[in-house]
Amino acid sequence: MFRKELKVLDCTIRDGGLINNYQFPKEFVKAVYRAICDSGIDIIEMGKKLTESAEYPRSKYGEWNYCDDNLLKEIIDSYQGKYKPQIAVMYDIGRIDLAGLKQKKDSPIDMIRTACYVPQIDKALDVVKRTKDKGYKTSLNIMAVSAAIESEINEALEGVAKTPEVDSLYLVDSYGAFYSEQITYYLNLYKKYVPIEKIGFHGHNNIQLAYANTQQCIIEGVNLLDVTINGMGRGAGNCPTELLMGFLKNPKFDVAPIYKVIQEHFAPLRKSIEWGYNDIYGISGQLNQHPCDAMKWRSDKEKQENCFDFYEYCTRQDLGPIE
Amino acid sequence: MFRKELKVLDCTIRDGGLINNYQFPKEFVKAVYRAICDSGIDIIEMGKKLTESAEYPRSKYGEWNYCDDNLLKEIIDSYQGKYKPQIAVMYDIGRIDLAGLKQKKDSPIDMIRTACYVPQIDKALDVVKRTKDKGYKTSLNIMAVSAAIESEINEALEGVAKTPEVDSLYLVDSYGAFYSEQITYYLNLYKKYVPIEKIGFHGHNNIQLAYANTQQCIIEGVNLLDVTINGMGRGAGNCPTELLMGFLKNPKFDVAPIYKVIQEHFAPLRKSIEWGYNDIYGISGQLNQHPCDAMKWRSDKEKQENCFDFYEYCTRQDLGPIE
Repeated sequence: MFRKELKVLDCTIRDGGLINNYQFPKEFVKAVYRAICDSGIDIIEMGKKLTESAEYPRSKYGEWNYCDDNLLKEIIDSYQGKYKPQIAVMYDIGRIDLAGLKQKKDSPIDMIRTACYVPQIDKALDVVKRTKDKGYKTSLNIMAVSAAIESEINEALEGVAKTPEVDSLYLVDSYGAFYSEQITYYLNLYKKYVPIEKIGFHGHNNIQLAYANTQQCIIEGVNLLDVTINGMGRGAGNCPTELLMGFLKNPKFDVAPIYKVIQEHFAPLRKSIEWGYNDIYGISGQLNQHPCDAMKWRSDKEKQENCFDFYEYCTRQDLGPIE
Repeated sequence: MFRKELKVLDCTIRDGGLINNYQFPKEFVKAVYRAICDSGIDIIEMGKKLTESAEYPRSKYGEWNYCDDNLLKEIIDSYQGKYKPQIAVMYDIGRIDLAGLKQKKDSPIDMIRTACYVPQIDKALDVVKRTKDKGYKTSLNIMAVSAAIESEINEALEGVAKTPEVDSLYLVDSYGAFYSEQITYYLNLYKKYVPIEKIGFHGHNNIQLAYANTQQCIIEGVNLLDVTINGMGRGAGNCPTELLMGFLKNPKFDVAPIYKVIQEHFAPLRKSIEWGYNDIYGISGQLNQHPCDAMKWRSDKEKQENCFDFYEYCTRQDLGPIE
């Protein structure tokens, strides 16, 4: 598959940080950044840009949850090559300091991605406008749409359609619940409000479909695709960067640096933290549930292999119907 | 997805046996059989039906490589419930004793699946005819078509079209190399020679697409689908039975017994033998290679995590172009 408009956004540090509370050593992040540069990937998301608070103390939440300018500059300056990707960070509604955000021209950040649930859409659109006003590229990532009521999604999308400051609108499969025909269905819904050129996709791999759904998006004309190296991300993780790189035939891309960083930095990390598909996440995705229950189950050494118990728990066999 | 014509064939013991040389304890196979019965799956493949030889001594190759009648009967009789699936076994060209095959009416076997590579098609069609003559349902599983020359596939399919004894013709993604549009492409090729009602699909999960490709086949009208419990099968394994069961809405199917047998029998087995996706198999699938190199690499404790080295090895970086 070759299409010159295709852009790949690697969010390994941001989505992967959800597993280890953003406790990546700088050397690890520098290695990831180098691999992204060497492989020709378009955009790298370096973490979240939250504001320190009593609830989110910097001491506990890891520096990639705050992405200070000097931290980002240190990473960017650590690479000596010519090509450098755009830098993105993520904003969570309610945990950010918009007043303190610098103008784009004074910041190492190129793009601010605002994540929200459907009911938060108006707050999110306000954030998008204000980040755009400061000169940043913007995206709006509406989470968990597989569990949202469609009339409310439509209402949210009407708001997006009226907000030209939204550069990119993401279809986000937060629960890893969609299969290809549903991807097409939701893209058709989004396309009623936003041209396909503006749409991106962020998948999760709960039912082994993150890569397949990313391909389905490409087939449907989506040109902005999220991936993570080795599929590292919350729960079952994401579409692996290396699979998408191997699939895309754009000559600007090279998959080899991704395999190199996996071998040198991710393979050792796999020994201490877990990510990727297993049957517990499969149940969670197939039942269209938030992955928090599955993650908790997997973290309990007594229960983590007990998929039948998890299935019974999730389908509330003990509670009976709730008519 | 509901379509009453859909039939599911679980080949856990046969494809899984390729990992451990068919050394499953009888209790394990009985538990699998019980789960298949309880979940309403249509067909179960119990192993291969090879003939003992100097090259294939029974002492070394495991009883599920031979599937003697009394062995199969013991498994079948171990289940007391009403519903029992059809029994299939696989024939490998050149390792079978057709003269010694009983008539169907005297055998516990319902279906004989003949596996062959494209150049073996004439031998395979002869085997199919002779198994059909003895009263069995037949299938022809043409392996590794992703690596075959298309004109030779066409020639093979011409032979299939002239052989009414072929009840089912399988599209087999032996290398786990296909993605959805290629599945459609090859199905369209097969449909030129054989009606869609006769076509089945057997996928491998090297690039995380076994389940997605199985769904693509369903979308394209295929009604005979191979799966394995927990995806257990050679290398990266197959489309997991539990994912397909969770996807299909046919009321005759029930996924819970599959999760039960995973928890009780497969989770312990995962500690001693490995199957399923990892980056080594991803490379193998994406490069459309026989999985034997990847399996060998994974079995070497010194190298098994070294995906970059494997990528360099597979792409023959040391040899240069071979124009």
